Amino acid sequence: MKQVTIHAPATVANLVCGFDVLGMCLNEPYDIMQVKLLDKREVIISSADGYNLPSDPALNTAGAPLLSILEEVKESIGFEVIINKQIKPGSGIGSSAASAAGSVAAANHLLGDIFSKEDLVRFAMIGEKVASGVKHADNISPCIYGGVTLIRSIFPLDIVPIPSPSLYVTVVHPQIEVRTSDARQILRKEVLLKDAIRQWGNIGGLVAGFIKNDYDLIGRSLEDVIIEPVRSMLIPGFDEIKQQCKSAGAMGGGISGSGPSIFMLSRDKATAENVKNVMKEIYDRIGLAHHLYVTTINHEGVKITED
Amino acid sequence: MKQVTIHAPATVANLVCGFDVLGMCLNEPYDIMQVKLLDKREVIISSADGYNLPSDPALNTAGAPLLSILEEVKESIGFEVIINKQIKPGSGIGSSAASAAGSVAAANHLLGDIFSKEDLVRFAMIGEKVASGVKHADNISPCIYGGVTLIRSIFPLDIVPIPSPSLYVTVVHPQIEVRTSDARQILRKEVLLKDAIRQWGNIGGLVAGFIKNDYDLIGRSLEDVIIEPVRSMLIPGFDEIKQQCKSAGAMGGGISGSGPSIFMLSRDKATAENVKNVMKEIYDRIGLAHHLYVTTINHEGVKITED
Repeated sequence: MKQVTIHAPATVANLVCGFDVLGMCLNEPYDIMQVKLLDKREVIISSADGYNLPSDPALNTAGAPLLSILEEVKESIGFEVIINKQIKPGSGIGSSAASAAGSVAAANHLLGDIFSKEDLVRFAMIGEKVASGVKHADNISPCIYGGVTLIRSIFPLDIVPIPSPSLYVTVVHPQIEVRTSDARQILRKEVLLKDAIRQWGNIGGLVAGFIKNDYDLIGRSLEDVIIEPVRSMLIPGFDEIKQQCKSAGAMGGGISGSGPSIFMLSRDKATAENVKNVMKEIYDRIGLAHHLYVTTINHEGVKITED
Repeated sequence: MKQVTIHAPATVANLVCGFDVLGMCLNEPYDIMQVKLLDKREVIISSADGYNLPSDPALNTAGAPLLSILEEVKESIGFEVIINKQIKPGSGIGSSAASAAGSVAAANHLLGDIFSKEDLVRFAMIGEKVASGVKHADNISPCIYGGVTLIRSIFPLDIVPIPSPSLYVTVVHPQIEVRTSDARQILRKEVLLKDAIRQWGNIGGLVAGFIKNDYDLIGRSLEDVIIEPVRSMLIPGFDEIKQQCKSAGAMGGGISGSGPSIFMLSRDKATAENVKNVMKEIYDRIGLAHHLYVTTINHEGVKITED
C-alpha cells in the first residue's frame, strides 16, 4: 500500500501578546512520521521513539483526527502511523499539534489532496482536544500553513496567514512540567479593559510589524500585560532570561505557548547564538536541565519528504 | 505677520474592534482654520462658524495645545486662530481632534516645521484632554498622519501608520447628543478574557486586511463584542442600520468613535450611495434628524491650503 514520510514541525503559539490567536512555525525540531494507507477501516498508531503515548487511536493526538477523516470518506481504507517524536511532549512548542497536523496532512496526501488546509486544521483540532481538552488551533494552523498565522475567529474558523520576514528563533526548554490545563486554569476569567486595550495595541503592532518587515515594531509589540505576568511565575528564571536575552540583542520574546519553553526572536544567527548562550548560562547556574534550539521561522509548514 | 489656512479633516476612531487604538482619516467633512503668527506671547481663538466654543484658550480644544507649543519655543510669538467648524461638535467623527490637530499643524508650519508629526500628536492630545477629560490619540493621529493609524501604546506614545486601500465611507450623524464622557462611563472596567481574545483576533485581522488590501478580511474583522453591544444602545436604530447597510453591500462598520455617528465602509461609490439611502430611509422613518456624508479615506491628513 501507499506510504509517505512527513516532517511535522514545532510551533510557538501566542507570540507573547496574541494569546490563543497567533502562532509561528519553526524549522526545528520536527517530528518524523510514517503514514501508510491500509485497505481496512482502522487506525493503528505505533511509536518509534520510546515516548509512552496512548496506542488507542481515539485517545491519541495523531489517531483521533484520522478517525474523523475516516468518517468523511466512504472507501474501505485506514491508516497506520509510526511516530518518531522529536518534539518533547509538554515542552510548549506544539508537540501534540505536530502529531495531529502531521497525521492529517499525510493522510490527505495519501487520499489525493481531497481536503483544504482549513479542513486539515479542523481535523487536527480534534487531536488538540484529546491532548489538552480544548479545541485550539494556534499551534495547528502554523504547523499546517507554515509561517505566522492569525486565528481571527475559532467559531467560525477563520485563519489568516501573516507574511513575515526570515527571523532567527532561539528556544530553551527547561525540564519542568507545566500542564496546558494547569497553565490555563491559573488565568483569570476577566481582564481589565485597560489591559485588554494595551494588548490589542500590541497585537495590531505585531501583525503590522510582521507584514511590513519592521523589526523594531515587532520587538516593541512583543509585550504581554495579561497572560505572561501570571504564567511566567511557573517558569524558573523567566524574568532574568527575558531581560538578559534582550540585552544580548534579541528583539524580544516570551513564553512559548503555555510554557515552559521560552522563545526569543533575533535578526541574525550570531545574535540568536548569543541568546542561546545567555539561556544556557542562566539555567546552568540555577542547575536546571534544559534543551536549546537555534532555528528560523519555517514558511512552509508540514512537509512530505518521501512518497 | 505670516498666516496659513488649514483643512483639518474628520476622523473615525475605534474602527469597531479597535477601541482606543485604531482610527481613520476622512476626506470630508473638514474644518477650515486660519492661523496667524503674532509677535506677542498670546493665543487668541475666535469662531467664524456660530458654534459657541470657549474663547479662553486654556479651555479651548484648539487653544490649549498652542499654549503648550508656546512653552516649548523661546521667541516672543503667539497665534491667532479663526475656526470655521464644519465638523459638528459631539458628532463622534473627531470634531475636537480636528480643532486640536489643525491648530498645532498650522502653528508648526508657521514655525518652519520644527516639530515631528509625533510631537504634534502630543501637543494636540492636550486639546483632547480639554474636550473630553482624557488624553486620547485615536482621532488625533489619523487627522495628523492621514490614513489608518494604530496607537500601539499611549505611554510611551507609539503610532503605527497602517497602509490601507482606497475605500468609500458613508457616515450618518443622527442629531442626538452622546457625550464622550458618558459613552466612556457606561463601559465595564473588566471584560471577559474570551471576549478580549475574540477582539484581538479581529484587530489582527483588520490590520492584516488593510495592509494586504483584503476586502473580505476587513469586512469579517469589523466586529466588536465588547464596546458596541453596550454603546449601541445609546444610538436609535443602530442594529437595523448596521444590518440593512450590510445587506446593501457595505463591507461592515459600526459606531464612529463614541457615537452617535455610524460609519460604513464600501468598495465603490455606488454601494456607498446605496448605504447612504438606507441610512436616510431608516432615520426618516424613525423621524430623527440627521446628516449624511459619502466620502473616502483621506491618506494625507491635515492640509495647508494657503500660505
